[in-house]
Amino acid sequence: MFPPRSVRYGANYVPSRGWFYSWLDFSADDARRDLADLAGIGLDHVRVFPVWPWIQPNRTLIRRRAVDDLLTLVDVAAEFGLSVAVDLLQGHLSSFDFLPSWVLTHHGRSVFTDEAVRQGIATYVDVLTREVAAKDNVFAVTLGNEVNNLWPHNPTDSGASRRWAAELLDVARAAAPHLLTLHSLYDATWYDPAHPFHPADNVDLGDLTTVHSWVFNGVSAIDGPLGPATLTHADYLVELAAATATDPARPVWLQEVGAPRPDVGADDAAPYTRGLLEAVGQNPALWGVTWWCSHDLDRGLADFPEREYDLGLFTVDHQAKPAAKELEAHVRAARAVPRTRPALVCPADLRAEPERRAEVAPGSAFHGAWVRRRRSGPVAVVTARRAGDEAYLQARGIDTVLQEQT
Amino acid sequence: MFPPRSVRYGANYVPSRGWFYSWLDFSADDARRDLADLAGIGLDHVRVFPVWPWIQPNRTLIRRRAVDDLLTLVDVAAEFGLSVAVDLLQGHLSSFDFLPSWVLTHHGRSVFTDEAVRQGIATYVDVLTREVAAKDNVFAVTLGNEVNNLWPHNPTDSGASRRWAAELLDVARAAAPHLLTLHSLYDATWYDPAHPFHPADNVDLGDLTTVHSWVFNGVSAIDGPLGPATLTHADYLVELAAATATDPARPVWLQEVGAPRPDVGADDAAPYTRGLLEAVGQNPALWGVTWWCSHDLDRGLADFPEREYDLGLFTVDHQAKPAAKELEAHVRAARAVPRTRPALVCPADLRAEPERRAEVAPGSAFHGAWVRRRRSGPVAVVTARRAGDEAYLQARGIDTVLQEQT
Repeated sequence: MFPPRSVRYGANYVPSRGWFYSWLDFSADDARRDLADLAGIGLDHVRVFPVWPWIQPNRTLIRRRAVDDLLTLVDVAAEFGLSVAVDLLQGHLSSFDFLPSWVLTHHGRSVFTDEAVRQGIATYVDVLTREVAAKDNVFAVTLGNEVNNLWPHNPTDSGASRRWAAELLDVARAAAPHLLTLHSLYDATWYDPAHPFHPADNVDLGDLTTVHSWVFNGVSAIDGPLGPATLTHADYLVELAAATATDPARPVWLQEVGAPRPDVGADDAAPYTRGLLEAVGQNPALWGVTWWCSHDLDRGLADFPEREYDLGLFTVDHQAKPAAKELEAHVRAARAVPRTRPALVCPADLRAEPERRAEVAPGSAFHGAWVRRRRSGPVAVVTARRAGDEAYLQARGIDTVLQEQT
Repeated sequence: MFPPRSVRYGANYVPSRGWFYSWLDFSADDARRDLADLAGIGLDHVRVFPVWPWIQPNRTLIRRRAVDDLLTLVDVAAEFGLSVAVDLLQGHLSSFDFLPSWVLTHHGRSVFTDEAVRQGIATYVDVLTREVAAKDNVFAVTLGNEVNNLWPHNPTDSGASRRWAAELLDVARAAAPHLLTLHSLYDATWYDPAHPFHPADNVDLGDLTTVHSWVFNGVSAIDGPLGPATLTHADYLVELAAATATDPARPVWLQEVGAPRPDVGADDAAPYTRGLLEAVGQNPALWGVTWWCSHDLDRGLADFPEREYDLGLFTVDHQAKPAAKELEAHVRAARAVPRTRPALVCPADLRAEPERRAEVAPGSAFHGAWVRRRRSGPVAVVTARRAGDEAYLQARGIDTVLQEQT
């Protein structure tokens, strides 16, 4: 009933010294020390984040040395057997937006809709993708971390958002056909009815779906830190993504998940991490888990949201924290997944009806019903439209469609 | 009647290779080649522009290497006998605003009014001023280039603008009592009745007054490029500044002036430069002239206003342009100034009545009257309130107060 399976485990790499500001003074030795920590707990990959305006300070200038620093980081990862996913357009990192002067203030132009800016970004995506694709240990490029956080300061609408991402994914795919090319969005795409980035973008664009599960989105207020809604939120999001895709075999990468304070207190970090990994680890759609993040943030750096300072698997002086130990134990254990499970019918088809997203948000009746069922074991999500499609259900490992009232 | 005098002549240093983006890959040799051009035409100083968010990417992080690069540039200037004025907060450069992520978008805070941001800037001003003050060839720090261009994207009002500058000038003065500490504003402070930075800021704050004369502000439309209004605009602005100061001996630095296309065509650059230098060179309040700018802009760099590409004294491959030759001839000639001149009474007291700024703007009746008189030789500006103050008039070299109707 529980066949072994292969899930990839990694970390979002946040430099222990100088956060991402360290790109301005890149040190391979500092990176080496950090990545040794991650390899040491059995992780197989890192997701890395160049900072856009420092690489492309002018629309027609891509700094060679900055590209070389990124390539050096990729090589350092290879020294430790780590493969690398590169997010291109940062863009958004931990509450801060990094935007070049050529889109700001007197040059105020939306990164999503201005044609000259889009051409500039296309060049950036093309150049960086070609460069990193030449490295054997790079396996993916993502357009940028949670690019929907660049809205509303960069105006867009759902049509423009989708065209923007589709166009840039085409650029990346042409530049590196052998890499996974991916889109990345924070979970307002799933839960906010008015959000101008749609669930269809998550599940149609890119070679697999990425989701970012953050329990401070409202779910920890339900029963956190160790309640079932909180511990299964990552699994829930993976399920929503799997149910929304047209392809029943489309994998879902849990590209970000972490143990944010104060939602998850220091004493609860270990059982929380264990519980969420156990839950999501049973999901047959799961492609991989990438923890946010590798290292804590130096409290000497100002203006970050409080929760950002303690998200590391490791402290700034390289001590493994409880979440690191739980993640390591999970990674090193034989992993298995139930062959089949029941499914709950979702009232909304998020792909076709994005205006109904509130019906699946944390705290909604459907979410509550799913969490209740999930206490007895894995439970899938299926849309009404496909609840009678036997081949589809089989492909997703669904043996029973529950007609439960939510 | 024309005693010799000492006026300082220099250039605003714009790197020939990579514009200010070159700070991200600073090369002392590139700077050396550029500054050799400037010393070669007899200039005595450069005004230099570090880029704020690259030095202080986090409110509590000032990058040592970036500071060292600035100090190296100062040392390179010393090799050529050039003294250096450092503008601190860029901030604004050639239509682009460089602002750190900690004041933008999700952290949206006005650099002028947010208390934490002001503290961060105060630290920046303190650290940079102390560092550059240790170099013998540094003579001035200016808070930042035309900081009023950071408005309206950074909200402010006239009270906040003045407090902001006064507070930061105190920081700089405490950090380096032997340097000139200066404020810098573009000419909307003189001409725009609603502008939230006042003429009083120019003439009360800092150790001398700085003015930036750009004929694309409307004056070239009157009679440019070689008409009297255009050629005397720099002199007019120096006069307005002198007339607005309470201290009749307060010097005025023409900190920026240039020959912008298309207002001044390539064929007119030489006579335009000669004419404007002759006119302003006769002004007894003139402390110095700093040409904008040292070097043209590589046309491979995008998104600059068209006029910015050809403002250099030198091309990107170090060829002296006509303006450079005229500036050199002017610098090397014995300079003199009439001992006395008549004055025209200005209808508005700009220091006390900033709402009347339109009455002195290019094209106003007063401006027209002044330009007409100026054709016969130097003519001062005096406020009605001080037109009968003999000691004041004498201190400003005014021998006659004209009762001309404007």
